[in-house]
Amino acid sequence: MIKARVIVTLKNGVLDPQGKAIEHALSGLGFDGVGSARQGKVFDLELSGTDRAKAEADLKAMCDKLLANTVIENYAVEIA
Amino acid sequence: MIKARVIVTLKNGVLDPQGKAIEHALSGLGFDGVGSARQGKVFDLELSGTDRAKAEADLKAMCDKLLANTVIENYAVEIA
Repeated sequence: MIKARVIVTLKNGVLDPQGKAIEHALSGLGFDGVGSARQGKVFDLELSGTDRAKAEADLKAMCDKLLANTVIENYAVEIA
Repeated sequence: MIKARVIVTLKNGVLDPQGKAIEHALSGLGFDGVGSARQGKVFDLELSGTDRAKAEADLKAMCDKLLANTVIENYAVEIA
């Protein structure tokens, strides 16, 4: 069994209204030093098998097909 | 300026229908080896100042007050 974490974040330059809302909310709560906030997604997956190279290739295919919108999002795959 | 990443994940035992939907979708796309999928959130923040200890304390306070629901979610703070 292989445990993996996929982190999907918006590309630079893509507007992030959710992140802006978080910035404003933090500032309203008294946290003054927040320069920018951007929100992304994280996926924790468990894959059967022990072949790390195959797992990494599969995870990248999963990102390209389902987990990330590669037009506006970057993804990073970490295998534990 | 300090860059930080906050990762918020559901605690073990908390139902994750979104993760279940991702499992089924991946299986439908032909990825057979996916044992479990759980989705969480990631926040990329930029904080002013250079005091890493203060930044970490602030980030934990932000998580407790706004970014995470600590009844059902865990959070991890990483300072770059």
